[in-house]
This record gives sequence, C-alpha cells and structure tokens, in this order.
Amino acid sequence: MKLTILGCYSATPRIDTHPTSQLLEVNGHMFLIDCGEGTQVQLRRYKVKFSRIKHIFISHLHGDHFFGLVGLISTFQLLGRDTELHVYGPKGIKEAITLQLKLGNSWTPFALIFHELTSKKPELIFEDDKVTVETIPLDHRVYTNGFLFKEKEGERKLLIEKVLEANINVAYYNKLKLGFDVENEDGVLIDHTKVTMPPPPPKSYAFCSDTTYKPDNADQLKGVNVIYHESTFLESHAHLCKKTKHSTAKQAAQIAKLAKAKALILGHYSTRYNDLEDFRREAKEIFDNVALAEDGKVFDF
Amino acid sequence: MKLTILGCYSATPRIDTHPTSQLLEVNGHMFLIDCGEGTQVQLRRYKVKFSRIKHIFISHLHGDHFFGLVGLISTFQLLGRDTELHVYGPKGIKEAITLQLKLGNSWTPFALIFHELTSKKPELIFEDDKVTVETIPLDHRVYTNGFLFKEKEGERKLLIEKVLEANINVAYYNKLKLGFDVENEDGVLIDHTKVTMPPPPPKSYAFCSDTTYKPDNADQLKGVNVIYHESTFLESHAHLCKKTKHSTAKQAAQIAKLAKAKALILGHYSTRYNDLEDFRREAKEIFDNVALAEDGKVFDF
Repeated sequence: MKLTILGCYSATPRIDTHPTSQLLEVNGHMFLIDCGEGTQVQLRRYKVKFSRIKHIFISHLHGDHFFGLVGLISTFQLLGRDTELHVYGPKGIKEAITLQLKLGNSWTPFALIFHELTSKKPELIFEDDKVTVETIPLDHRVYTNGFLFKEKEGERKLLIEKVLEANINVAYYNKLKLGFDVENEDGVLIDHTKVTMPPPPPKSYAFCSDTTYKPDNADQLKGVNVIYHESTFLESHAHLCKKTKHSTAKQAAQIAKLAKAKALILGHYSTRYNDLEDFRREAKEIFDNVALAEDGKVFDF
Repeated sequence: MKLTILGCYSATPRIDTHPTSQLLEVNGHMFLIDCGEGTQVQLRRYKVKFSRIKHIFISHLHGDHFFGLVGLISTFQLLGRDTELHVYGPKGIKEAITLQLKLGNSWTPFALIFHELTSKKPELIFEDDKVTVETIPLDHRVYTNGFLFKEKEGERKLLIEKVLEANINVAYYNKLKLGFDVENEDGVLIDHTKVTMPPPPPKSYAFCSDTTYKPDNADQLKGVNVIYHESTFLESHAHLCKKTKHSTAKQAAQIAKLAKAKALILGHYSTRYNDLEDFRREAKEIFDNVALAEDGKVFDF
C-alpha cells in the first residue's frame, strides 16, 4: 500500500496548508479519500493521473473534506473522461454535486455513480477480488465515517524446487496456489503445504476522519497495519474536543494502542499550532510507532 | 479605483494559474467579482482583509467562476464574521450555497443575503451615495451577467484661497461643495463656480465575463474608463467561439473600440496558450490601449 497525503490540515485552505485529502494505492486501485478545496491542484502537484481515480470516499460533508469534489468532477469532465466514477459519501452528497452541475448546465459524459451512506454500523461498501472497503462509524458534529481498506489474502507462493521435485504437472500449479492438494504425475496426492508457502499477510489501512475519542471502534480495527487518526488538538486544548467533536493526539494514540495497530499516522491539525512535533511527542506517551502526516508526504507500507 | 486580479484563467485551477476572481476597490468598498475554486487562498496571498468584503458579484454558475464561493463563506464563518454579506448572482446560487451549508450543519452566524438575478436587460443591483453597480447582460452557455461599476459624481473642490478672499463663513463650505451659491459675511451672493472647481470626472469599470461577441452592449458601456473583457481564444481558434460561447482577443478589442473605452484588460485565457503577448498583439490591431490580466496584477485607474 502506498499512501500520499494531499492535505492534512483542518478548517480552511491556506497558502501552505491544504485541507484533508489522501490517495491510497493498493493492488492497482487508486482510492481518493476526502476532497477538500484545492485537491485537484494537489493531484496535479504530485503528478497523479486523474483517469486512474475511479473511487472517491468522502467521510463527511464539512467543507475541509468535501468542497473540492465538485471542481474535481468538473475537471474530469473537461478532460473528456469516459470511465465511470464511484463516489461514496453521506446521504445528501448526490444532491449537492448534481445541483451544482445542473446549474452550470454541465452534465458529465461519464457515469457518475453515488453510493450514499446512512448506516451507523460498519458496512462493506466496496469489494473486488483483491480489496475490501468498510465504513468505520465515527462521532462528529455531522454524520461521519472513516474507511477501512483491507487487502484480501493473496495466493500461496510456489516453492518451485519442491514442485519440480514432486513431479507435478504445470496445469496444477494454480490449484496449488489456491491451497488445494493435487495428484502428481505418478498418481500420488501431494500436500500443498509441502510445495507452497503461505501468502504474505494481507495489509490494511484505517482512515479515521473527524471524530471524538471513540474506543469502541478498536474491535473493528484490531490488528490493522496503519491507522490514520485525526488529532486536531494537543492536550492544552483537550477541553475543545467535546464541543467540536474532535480528538487530541493522545486520544488518537489510545485508539492505535487499543486496536494493536502497527503504526499510527497523525493529521488534521488545527492551524493554531506551529510545531507538529508536539503532536508526535504527546502521542508517543501512549503508543510508540507514530508518524506525522504532512502535505505531500508518502507512506509505503 | 484599484483592481486586483486574483485569477484570470479559464477552465480548471492549476498550480500556477487560477480561475476567475477579481477584487475592485472603489470609494471604500471592496467588491469581489467571481470566485473560482481557491479564491480564498488567493485573497490570503494578496493579504486582503476578509472582513472588508461585503459584496460578492458572481457572473454565472460555471465552476471556474463560482466553486470557491461556498468555501469562502464557510471561512468567513470560521473566522467569526458578524457583518452581513451580500451575494449577487444567477437564480439558483442561493440553493447551491445553502444546501451545502445545511449538509455541513453549519449555518452562518452573519446575515447572508442573496440577490438572485434573472433579468436579461441591464439592471441596477447596488447603489449607495458613492457607487452604482449595474448588470451587463452577456451571452454564454448559461445565464451570465457582466457588471458595470460606476462612481457617482463627487463633490466640487474648494479653491481655498478664493473662498477666504470671498469672506465666506466656514459653515457654508459644504453647501459650496454640493454646488450651491451662498451669501458671504457681507451679505453678497457668491457664485459657487468662482470659488470651487468641478469634481474629478467619476470613473467606471466594466467586467465582461464569459460571452460571445456581443456588440449591442457597447451602448451601455459608452465612455467607460476600463473594460475587462474575456478573450478565451486567439484568432487561430476563432471557430471554437460559436460552440463554446466565448470571445477572441480581437472581439474583446472590438467591444472596447465600439464603447470608446479608455483602456481594455484581457483575461480568461484558455490554458492551451503559452505566450499571453499573442493576445495583446491581436487585440492591438483593433484597439490601442490593451493590458493583460495576470494573476496577482494590480491596476490603478
């Protein structure tokens, strides 16, 4: 998985800080997660091929996560896109986008397919043979989801020397990779575990957007490789979390700890702070493997 | 009048080119004209005090003139604005903005007053004691207006030596400035034209947004100081004007010539061109005083 942070600040776009948007590459997919104002310019800056984006996930309908979507869709149209685009987001997103397209008398020539979300429980919203995407119900001032991206378990790997030694016909190799025992050329049943090794463990990424501290999500996130979790505030402003329904860096770390995640990425910083290292320092008191999101940063995992 | 070009390119925002937005300062007002995506960042870049903007004029509801408006309004809200904001634009603009605010559960604490436009004839849409703003009906793919900003005639200027010489009581100075004759301390009626000089001629600015060549507007624009007129294309692409309902640099110059304007500013360039000087060259064949809009450029007139 490769995660590119297009923007990771809260509230309003500024000259040097961009509102939330991320690009997750996994098994050939390029998933766009949230789309604050200016996201299309960030995509150009990091030389992303627009046509590779086929699925956009919007956590909630606050401007810093959503106001760039209509412009991006309009640009897709101007660029002559013809492949379909799937947009997953809270109920109302379809009306907001299509009303603006209608007012501009500019319908998309490509299929624009909205998947409106309303459930307050985790839901499987995307699945193909390699990846699943589930919602992570969050608790913010408006209906909000995070998204959990999981690779499916891949095929077993052939131990090619052992396969040759066991005298197995090439036609059976795929069956072995899928985990079946097969007969060899001499009619002997070969245990697939003797001639293959298990696939690498599938990876997972949890994007936890704007939310109060919500420890009951830890079960769903158990064992996730990487959690991105908003940390709008430092402890000095922890009192603002309740009213604004945001989290501190420490609370984000607490979620990572409860979920037994392998790594935590912090982001969605309030622009009142000058030194992001303070976020890392506070989170590290709870959870060791902490990284800081920064606009343009790429995480490979 | 002071005009700041915040963005002057057509179609989509890019790293170094911004869609249409302009700021016109006139007699204490700061009028924002059009608001493409990223306008709020441009306002920050050029250090504009957000609270000074009280009137926003939107020519039409295509993204490159309009998609930055909802974000700007949301930022006004986050900054704790309490003074009212007037938005003038095509019918539908209110629904588009308020729907998005509603979905984000984020109403403005300040009065947000929409003036929806539907007339296809010039209309007076703003007036105070110093300035008027009229619509300029344009012909584009959707309902579109330009805007004509006119200073009202100011007060006459006192010729202070002559006033003293004429022995006029200070209490009458304002009356003189307004163009009345007054009695001096000796009871003699003083002709105001002898002790004052006429006010400087009022200035005017016409913003002509996206449109085909529309020479019948020249009457309304007669004698205007400065016309900004879109010039999406050069002559080499003149054949695209009909379908897209845009103008060439030459056509923009023709409008300036017919209107007997004092100066022409070109803008709304298609991003297909590399050298903006070509626009100036083609326009100059028709009209001499041509300037090129560029993002960040300031015109004082």
